[in-house]
Amino acid sequence: MNLSRRDTLLGTAALAAVPLMTSTQVKAAVPVADKQAPSYYRYKVGDAVVTVVSDGKNVFPLTDAFITNAKKDEVAAELEKAFMPPGMMAIYFAPLVIQTGGKLVVIDTGNGALAKTNSKGNNGLFHDNLAAAGFDAKAVDMVVISHFHGDHVNGLLTADGTPAFPNAEVLVPATEWKFWMDDGEMSRAKGDRMVGLFKNNRNIFEKGLNKKVTPYEWNKELAPGLTSVETVGHTPGHTSYVLASGSGKVFIQSDVTNNPNPFATHPEWHAFFDQDADVAEKTRRRVYDMVVAEKLQVQGFHYPFPGLGNVVKDGAGYRVIPAAWNSSM
Amino acid sequence: MNLSRRDTLLGTAALAAVPLMTSTQVKAAVPVADKQAPSYYRYKVGDAVVTVVSDGKNVFPLTDAFITNAKKDEVAAELEKAFMPPGMMAIYFAPLVIQTGGKLVVIDTGNGALAKTNSKGNNGLFHDNLAAAGFDAKAVDMVVISHFHGDHVNGLLTADGTPAFPNAEVLVPATEWKFWMDDGEMSRAKGDRMVGLFKNNRNIFEKGLNKKVTPYEWNKELAPGLTSVETVGHTPGHTSYVLASGSGKVFIQSDVTNNPNPFATHPEWHAFFDQDADVAEKTRRRVYDMVVAEKLQVQGFHYPFPGLGNVVKDGAGYRVIPAAWNSSM
Repeated sequence: MNLSRRDTLLGTAALAAVPLMTSTQVKAAVPVADKQAPSYYRYKVGDAVVTVVSDGKNVFPLTDAFITNAKKDEVAAELEKAFMPPGMMAIYFAPLVIQTGGKLVVIDTGNGALAKTNSKGNNGLFHDNLAAAGFDAKAVDMVVISHFHGDHVNGLLTADGTPAFPNAEVLVPATEWKFWMDDGEMSRAKGDRMVGLFKNNRNIFEKGLNKKVTPYEWNKELAPGLTSVETVGHTPGHTSYVLASGSGKVFIQSDVTNNPNPFATHPEWHAFFDQDADVAEKTRRRVYDMVVAEKLQVQGFHYPFPGLGNVVKDGAGYRVIPAAWNSSM
Repeated sequence: MNLSRRDTLLGTAALAAVPLMTSTQVKAAVPVADKQAPSYYRYKVGDAVVTVVSDGKNVFPLTDAFITNAKKDEVAAELEKAFMPPGMMAIYFAPLVIQTGGKLVVIDTGNGALAKTNSKGNNGLFHDNLAAAGFDAKAVDMVVISHFHGDHVNGLLTADGTPAFPNAEVLVPATEWKFWMDDGEMSRAKGDRMVGLFKNNRNIFEKGLNKKVTPYEWNKELAPGLTSVETVGHTPGHTSYVLASGSGKVFIQSDVTNNPNPFATHPEWHAFFDQDADVAEKTRRRVYDMVVAEKLQVQGFHYPFPGLGNVVKDGAGYRVIPAAWNSSM
């Protein structure tokens, strides 16, 4: 313990650290618990029940390439204000399970089995936490995909490449489907990342799912109370959702922002992963101005778990106020 | 769904809610899950492991009596800014389990078995969540009490009035012990609440524990890395803690503030439960100025679960930034 700090706190120079426990009877040391709580969280929206299911996190060093229109030092300084790990960026992932009208619906599927291995268990945890939350992947009726980035689609397959939700209809945004399945678009893909994304999507949807998907349009009720909303920019067919039931309503934003720090606090910052960053910024501002005006709760795929909160204007940007955790329902 | 709101969002007057699911094959409806996740959360502080264990919540209508120097409408307006339930106050409770140096240490014990019944399972959940977190109350070596209010001491006993931690040494602040066990102080207690607190404490410590407690002083290392810190005002012997191990350090504040909304945002507001409200406010400002200056993480008993965060200055008050949840350790 740092003495000077402690003195500041205690307002005294005394440091009399005398243990009170002097028992000679040594009890067996309790093994240090190194297993985190199962990371799922439930809340009701009218008659629907949402279960947020964590897929884990990815923490990596900031580079100038991460945000294309800001220097990494500028970004690092901003993240430090939010008490994030110095010089690092943290991204969280949380697919949803929605029980509505007797249907079991999954929205997005996490980074998948390989990510769990590669990250040494920090990531790719969706299927583990899904089971911990009491759900059997075989009982899922419908998987709704918001867009075709790996952290949203990889969990569609198991480690051996077979469908992870064997009895589910897989719904995909029609525009997204058209883009990634278009051979012309694939041939024009620039850079390793985009080429890799095309390959990954072809592997999942052609090889793994044999193209058994149902493309959906925007402004459609995909399941009782769950309506698709166009929020493009991050990808050509990027989709958000409104879940409404009774007097309850939540905006399921997908990747309108990534982690609110820095992407809500700095809506003008363009991440490398936004495929059309100018359009993504316009969408971000339009959606966030709307949820602020309507005081509409937002569920964020990349928000820190459990990812439910309200948005307020804060200076030139926005701030997310996490909803308080309820230990009972 | 509210049409006009939706139109604002979609930028269109169209509302074509056509369900895509038209299958005539009706699957068995999955029962709606109404059980919340077990509410515990683990993190490391150097070699020590902290498990935050939720006791639940208490939500009640605001009255003018709740804050003695502000009107309920003023308080309600402030809470609405934090998206708390309109006209209501929410208080959360979270004792800790600390594994340090081979010892299993509990700090505070929650509202107890009767509260669970009376609240219909919204409160008094500590012992349930303790078991869910994998701990056996019989294995606890030490219970450290921060102060003698019911939400901190009631869980010392089981529903039948016997010790809930039968093999633990119970450590209590010496000043707190002296105050509540003093017959003169009890005879001078004013109002039903203070009389009730004395009765409750006599019942727990005299009848339930047969006075088998170890009073402790401030600035003492009670268990490896865990040091008691004077933070009086809320009660005469109210105590906080510093847990320090390796390069890790956290300030365990107990009730320096209650819920940060409104008590960190408005440090000048005096709650009815602060026994010496002027001193409590001075302590609150002193401690919060310190944790802001030192960028020291704070664990708050009454913060929304899991209650770990950093504090920043915000206008005339403070704001708590919750730490991001880690789904792995």
